[in-house]
Amino acid sequence: MTRQQHLDDLFAFLRIPSISTDSARRDDLQRCASWLAEKFTVSGLRAKLHQTPGHPVVTARNRHRAGRRTVLIYGHYDVQPVDPLTLWRSDPFEPALGAGGVITARGATDNKGQILAHLLGAAESIAADGDLPLNVIFLVEGEEEIGSPHLAEFLRAHRADLACDVVAISDTGMIEPGRGTLTYGLRGIACLEVTVSGPDKDLHSGLFGGAVANPLTVIARLVATLHDAGGRVAISGFYDDVAPLAQWERDAWSKLPLTDTGLLKLTGAPALAPEQGYTALECTWGRPTAELNGLHGGYQGEGSKTVIPADAHAKLSFRLVPDQQPGKILSLAAAHLRKHCPSGVTLTVTPGHSGAAYLLDPAAPFAQAARRALTLAFPGKAPALVREGGSIPIVSDFKKILGVDTLLLGLALPDARIHSPNETFTVENFEAGIRLNQILLRELAR
Amino acid sequence: MTRQQHLDDLFAFLRIPSISTDSARRDDLQRCASWLAEKFTVSGLRAKLHQTPGHPVVTARNRHRAGRRTVLIYGHYDVQPVDPLTLWRSDPFEPALGAGGVITARGATDNKGQILAHLLGAAESIAADGDLPLNVIFLVEGEEEIGSPHLAEFLRAHRADLACDVVAISDTGMIEPGRGTLTYGLRGIACLEVTVSGPDKDLHSGLFGGAVANPLTVIARLVATLHDAGGRVAISGFYDDVAPLAQWERDAWSKLPLTDTGLLKLTGAPALAPEQGYTALECTWGRPTAELNGLHGGYQGEGSKTVIPADAHAKLSFRLVPDQQPGKILSLAAAHLRKHCPSGVTLTVTPGHSGAAYLLDPAAPFAQAARRALTLAFPGKAPALVREGGSIPIVSDFKKILGVDTLLLGLALPDARIHSPNETFTVENFEAGIRLNQILLRELAR
Repeated sequence: MTRQQHLDDLFAFLRIPSISTDSARRDDLQRCASWLAEKFTVSGLRAKLHQTPGHPVVTARNRHRAGRRTVLIYGHYDVQPVDPLTLWRSDPFEPALGAGGVITARGATDNKGQILAHLLGAAESIAADGDLPLNVIFLVEGEEEIGSPHLAEFLRAHRADLACDVVAISDTGMIEPGRGTLTYGLRGIACLEVTVSGPDKDLHSGLFGGAVANPLTVIARLVATLHDAGGRVAISGFYDDVAPLAQWERDAWSKLPLTDTGLLKLTGAPALAPEQGYTALECTWGRPTAELNGLHGGYQGEGSKTVIPADAHAKLSFRLVPDQQPGKILSLAAAHLRKHCPSGVTLTVTPGHSGAAYLLDPAAPFAQAARRALTLAFPGKAPALVREGGSIPIVSDFKKILGVDTLLLGLALPDARIHSPNETFTVENFEAGIRLNQILLRELAR
Repeated sequence: MTRQQHLDDLFAFLRIPSISTDSARRDDLQRCASWLAEKFTVSGLRAKLHQTPGHPVVTARNRHRAGRRTVLIYGHYDVQPVDPLTLWRSDPFEPALGAGGVITARGATDNKGQILAHLLGAAESIAADGDLPLNVIFLVEGEEEIGSPHLAEFLRAHRADLACDVVAISDTGMIEPGRGTLTYGLRGIACLEVTVSGPDKDLHSGLFGGAVANPLTVIARLVATLHDAGGRVAISGFYDDVAPLAQWERDAWSKLPLTDTGLLKLTGAPALAPEQGYTALECTWGRPTAELNGLHGGYQGEGSKTVIPADAHAKLSFRLVPDQQPGKILSLAAAHLRKHCPSGVTLTVTPGHSGAAYLLDPAAPFAQAARRALTLAFPGKAPALVREGGSIPIVSDFKKILGVDTLLLGLALPDARIHSPNETFTVENFEAGIRLNQILLRELAR
């Protein structure tokens, strides 16, 4: 296949608005899964589209032979929402190819570009050699961005079919362009929705202000109790199970080309605000957080409307590190909120999706194979060994259910703006990913 | 005119969606002003539509004669926004006449029903007697719900034409159905918008959480500093100029049919939450507040989106009592917010509309005339003497610019749901208002 054919495939994939959190997009998710199954089939793999209570899972495999190792390559075809839409410089679902081979579209990096690179790498190998050098299972789901609610169940139901020696995923970041990166640790996540209800309707704040509690004031005061003045999480017991960072990690990370200046530029924030005693990098890779991802209540339009709103809503998430347990953190958080909620309102706390943090020994044999593959796919620089602050809950499910480790060989550049407006992927990394798949399968087969 | 003709006029008035805060409704405001000017004209008054930098002012007058007193009757034809629209049981701009003569529509009570009652009262008097018993000026504006930004200027520019002995307004509440109510005090208001900006785009909370300040967390912590644990406003100096309530007021108010049980039912709140040392009624009529009318940031849709939002926004308003000065309160609040804002974010504080509180001696001569008129229009019960928690900034402007007191003879029932979904007015109060106008003009002429 030519480079142009690779790009045509990617653009077709990116044009499908597969936003998993948006129930209005259900048909688009189905369409996206069908597109993918068809693409696996024409590449010479046996593909299958599995319906779930949510969005479909697509699997594909070569003809497995006894005595060969098996690798499972995981990815996801669903994408994040696109709001605020006004900040996009082009239609998020009409990929734009700009200067320097930069592709702008929702899902370009996360994760359509990366999983398609693996698919096309396998397709190239099959076209050249008639088969792959080991047994391969592709597993591509449509619910990663909403916490993979049905994937663990799917793994359990298909445990025999999915039996493998190791999992490989490209859904993490590269430390810099041209340098292969093995991510040996991920933060976990635990989500929570909070609603504070007061009056049974919005009230005139003049007529009633002073007599009743304002749900918006209550929720603001409530979420304000989640941190202390120094920015540490103030939930009792939150840090109890946190494993301290190893000295070798702190030393290695300090030598990476990830400076505070670079982080400032990437985020566009006026200043960094790390936890005391840690660098900003250590905070994002190895320290837990409590974040407000959304809060709303009352009037939000132009001008003013002097109401006491009937209710107010907050979306919270905790980023977790080894050995914090999501369930325990959610319980501690809910208890904290209940304890700090005043009378005069009704508090509702609803746990959302969650997943534990993950840590892999970079010296383990499959990790060594991955490091060799990265060295060959990105020649000239030793692969970086990093952790990442994001969460792939499924990684701990692979360990728990299939009993295997996961190799995270991501292709996301630091400025890819995943989850933000104007997400990008580069043609260079797309082609490198196709190459990486071919080398990795050879190295894992050795 | 028949009762049906009165209702036809009211419904036509209510059908015009004159939401002053919504710039998309500009033409509707013009249309509403024209409708009103035409209605004054056919009633036998000389009407004039005055353009302003905002929405028009409509004035109307009878032929003034020397040696007679002059009363200015003020009202407004603009209305509050209607969101959340889903909570309305019928179209807010298609008035519905239900059981017991209850009219449901945005603006039914606030203020279209009340100002139209005065217009129709004058029309009836002119039809019966050929003239009104004193000189009358109607002044109806279209910007009351956004704080009357151009009315003070209008009063100054037309000071000679608007010279009068007293102002009468029906835009306040009745203590109970059938009992005339003179409102001798109003709270003032001072509004403020707050924006906290951090990263220059929404960030992935996994990749960057822990390294930068979250604007939503910062704004929640910031607005949480506005109150102490007991619910009192924690801005330094906020209570310095507050005039204490008189003992006669506290005694009189305690005898009114406004119980905590009634207030609970009206608000639908799980519990009342008054300031310590005061009844809930005293809090709404005679104590100042700081309220959050809106707060938003981050993801608000279905499911989750794990972002650190680029910015967060809050709409604040302070309800003021004598002798607090709005300008001083806004300065104190802005200084408080700046002092409590951490580094790592950018804070913007924008003052909005404001107006001082108002207090009239209920024993003054015009107040006595108003009390006589209320006794006659609502026979059988002595008028109640109350304050109200809402704000009519224009009342202090009438005092400052025209040098006259204002009589507040409102017709809003406690359950009229003004500013809320399903606002109502009753045919009974509409007809009583028409009668009240006729009696009031006679009493003021005596």
